[in-house]
Amino acid sequence: MTTELLINAFDMNCPVHLSPGLWTHPRDRSAHKDLTYWTDLAKILERGKIDALFIADVLGVYDVYAGNGDAAIRHATQVPLNDPALLVPVMASVTEHLGFAVTCTLSFEPPYPFARRVSSLDHFSNGRFGWNIVTGYLNSAAKGAGLAQLTGHDLRYEIAEDYMNVVYKLWEGSWEDDAVLRDRSSGVFADPRKVHRVTYEGAHYRVDAVHLSEPSPQRTPFLFQAGTSGKGRAFAAQHAEGVFLTGPSRQVIAPRVADIRARAAAFGRDPGDIKIFLGVCIIVDKTEAAARAKEAEYRGYVNIEGALALLSGWTGINFSEYDLDDPVRYVKNDAVQSLLEGLTTADPDKVWTVRELAQGSAIGGPSILIVGSAEQVADELQSLARDTGVDGFNVSYAVSHDSFVDLVDLVIPELQRRGAFKLEYRPGTLREKIYGAGRSRLPDSHPAAAHRWREPTRLAAE
Amino acid sequence: MTTELLINAFDMNCPVHLSPGLWTHPRDRSAHKDLTYWTDLAKILERGKIDALFIADVLGVYDVYAGNGDAAIRHATQVPLNDPALLVPVMASVTEHLGFAVTCTLSFEPPYPFARRVSSLDHFSNGRFGWNIVTGYLNSAAKGAGLAQLTGHDLRYEIAEDYMNVVYKLWEGSWEDDAVLRDRSSGVFADPRKVHRVTYEGAHYRVDAVHLSEPSPQRTPFLFQAGTSGKGRAFAAQHAEGVFLTGPSRQVIAPRVADIRARAAAFGRDPGDIKIFLGVCIIVDKTEAAARAKEAEYRGYVNIEGALALLSGWTGINFSEYDLDDPVRYVKNDAVQSLLEGLTTADPDKVWTVRELAQGSAIGGPSILIVGSAEQVADELQSLARDTGVDGFNVSYAVSHDSFVDLVDLVIPELQRRGAFKLEYRPGTLREKIYGAGRSRLPDSHPAAAHRWREPTRLAAE
Repeated sequence: MTTELLINAFDMNCPVHLSPGLWTHPRDRSAHKDLTYWTDLAKILERGKIDALFIADVLGVYDVYAGNGDAAIRHATQVPLNDPALLVPVMASVTEHLGFAVTCTLSFEPPYPFARRVSSLDHFSNGRFGWNIVTGYLNSAAKGAGLAQLTGHDLRYEIAEDYMNVVYKLWEGSWEDDAVLRDRSSGVFADPRKVHRVTYEGAHYRVDAVHLSEPSPQRTPFLFQAGTSGKGRAFAAQHAEGVFLTGPSRQVIAPRVADIRARAAAFGRDPGDIKIFLGVCIIVDKTEAAARAKEAEYRGYVNIEGALALLSGWTGINFSEYDLDDPVRYVKNDAVQSLLEGLTTADPDKVWTVRELAQGSAIGGPSILIVGSAEQVADELQSLARDTGVDGFNVSYAVSHDSFVDLVDLVIPELQRRGAFKLEYRPGTLREKIYGAGRSRLPDSHPAAAHRWREPTRLAAE
Repeated sequence: MTTELLINAFDMNCPVHLSPGLWTHPRDRSAHKDLTYWTDLAKILERGKIDALFIADVLGVYDVYAGNGDAAIRHATQVPLNDPALLVPVMASVTEHLGFAVTCTLSFEPPYPFARRVSSLDHFSNGRFGWNIVTGYLNSAAKGAGLAQLTGHDLRYEIAEDYMNVVYKLWEGSWEDDAVLRDRSSGVFADPRKVHRVTYEGAHYRVDAVHLSEPSPQRTPFLFQAGTSGKGRAFAAQHAEGVFLTGPSRQVIAPRVADIRARAAAFGRDPGDIKIFLGVCIIVDKTEAAARAKEAEYRGYVNIEGALALLSGWTGINFSEYDLDDPVRYVKNDAVQSLLEGLTTADPDKVWTVRELAQGSAIGGPSILIVGSAEQVADELQSLARDTGVDGFNVSYAVSHDSFVDLVDLVIPELQRRGAFKLEYRPGTLREKIYGAGRSRLPDSHPAAAHRWREPTRLAAE
């Protein structure tokens, strides 16, 4: 039986997401991401039955390269960067089914107002909101928030656990399902006996409050996570319903996927209750030759310094200290090796220079770049899913909106012909669209379920 | 010469704003404030050339009445309450001129992500965003945020000063006006020599970061403030460009207005650089008799317990401890006296009961209620402005959207006939619409101006 793939579009509220320099392409709209950019994109994606628009975010500037943000600023490498959550209601207002997965860092905002914002987003999108949980990874963001430096990685996950306990209680435990009556004749809007003050005392966060929003369609939003470290994968296995992964090759990706599913099972969850999305970037055209020509044309707009600013931020290596013609084999770093592995499959013996590494990763960043006809792209997506166990893909763009229009007009119909992509959206919330009817709320095996309100055991005397 | 009045609409992202019980009116749409509620409202207001939609907010539940939130929850008294800032882009997408003044509490969110959200809102609304600065006033909000109790009033204003210094630096001092080039041919998006890391070390907040957003049309958003306490008025006189006041009578309001303008002058500002808006609620119809009948019909939907929940929250008095027929003269409280003064002008010798106080303030809360024909309402607005020195009004609703439709269809045309309201919006940003051409940015006399980037004095050796 052919498996239906899940497909998200991947973007960021800044000129350059993962393809440095390509904002200068004459057809690219990234340099002006105004509201029309986003509403047009949402309509394109919904036309293609794309599952969700996944919006990345980071609260800081890439300043590892040369020890400052100059290269990032010069080439608009993920800066300037506007707030992504604000885009959801306006995109929801021009679509009916498209989901939204928005990255929000929990490190710098208390859970009480954040929980309300998320519930509001789920209300305003009729249950189509997803939260990509991030604990922050740029030192510059910590400095912006007034911290001396970024909180240690393990401690960040401890804090995140505490934070999740608070927001779960607010979303799941404060208002009972039938609390809101909206009864104009009796004048009762909600039954206060069914609205509970939730209390929590953690090492890092505490709360003693009624949640400000009534239950939204999904209560807890659809939860995404993008961590790839050990702690991050443990967190994802426990909390996430959707995981975003990048990896250079089937050999690297398959065990990561298996590891997440095994960890989920160890937490008592159904491994199938985590949908795993692999990062890809697609350049497609009517023929392979046309796609290759398109790739070559795009490569003329790549910016090396912008690519190195991104690479430096991701790897912690200040690439400005190397000559562009230095061979990369002397640069010891897992992230670099991983990128190299993705680039070197065609010619494993080739010695790559810093310049070639930058050029090689400059379209789609750490995503797997797939270039070809619709048939070839569909073959590769299906084979990647089969070989690695991922459920679908986060598709980043080279040129926006062209890359997404190509995806929707060429690749999606080919997948649909093969029975590998849905012909229509399922009804209901994002969670129901992904997991099926009756799955509007999280299953009981999810840790959020423990925070649901339960009738206290009554004493006999009462 | 007839003065043109400024007129804002006043609402809140919850079923009951200032007219408890009236969500049960068959024509009222407040019980379902979905996106359509807001986009319809924005279009109605823009049709009437209304200056801005002012959206109140409070991060907590009214729980002074009976020591819990039950009455507030039962009667939807400012709860459930969704995030207001998320509404701005979608309303901006269906309007061209209407301004948005959104209440955001600075107590519970660090300035760095908040400054980005505000810049994003100013970008997405093409410079039509206003921030109503609030430092928070409900203990329940503090508990939600994990604090033992609300920070003391004076200390809150100290913290607010610190906060403002950080956000001013980010908005005014980080990106120079000509930093962004967006030059596709050279591949330079922004000139890093013109993008500055701003640093600030305060007792409560510090920052060391590049602002994440490029300069928005207004940079610092149009600043509103609604404080009425002494410290609040000093803060408003220093920072606000628009002040929202309530007061029961000309005798109380006029000296408050004069005080704010005098304080502004003492801070070196032009007293005319603060536009003062008085809270009113208008019930208008073709004739006075029809308006009175409408008022009587509306009063049939007032909810006393909901009104007392609001009154208890505002005054700190637990009104559940009083009998509804108790005379209010025994209740000693400035806010109560102020409300009574507003209610008793017609009959100063009357002894009001708790029930009557609740009923009397249940349409429009502390706003001055104006009932009559369009001519009578216009007379009263013009006379209130003349006698108190306010520049305009924040108009709350009894029944939404009907109250706003009546405002736009009946009162505005009458004011326009008199030359007391603009016939067209001015072009440009909210600040230009209010203060005129060339005033897109704050004047040099405003404290934000001190945080603008200045070329450092070069040493001769350089």
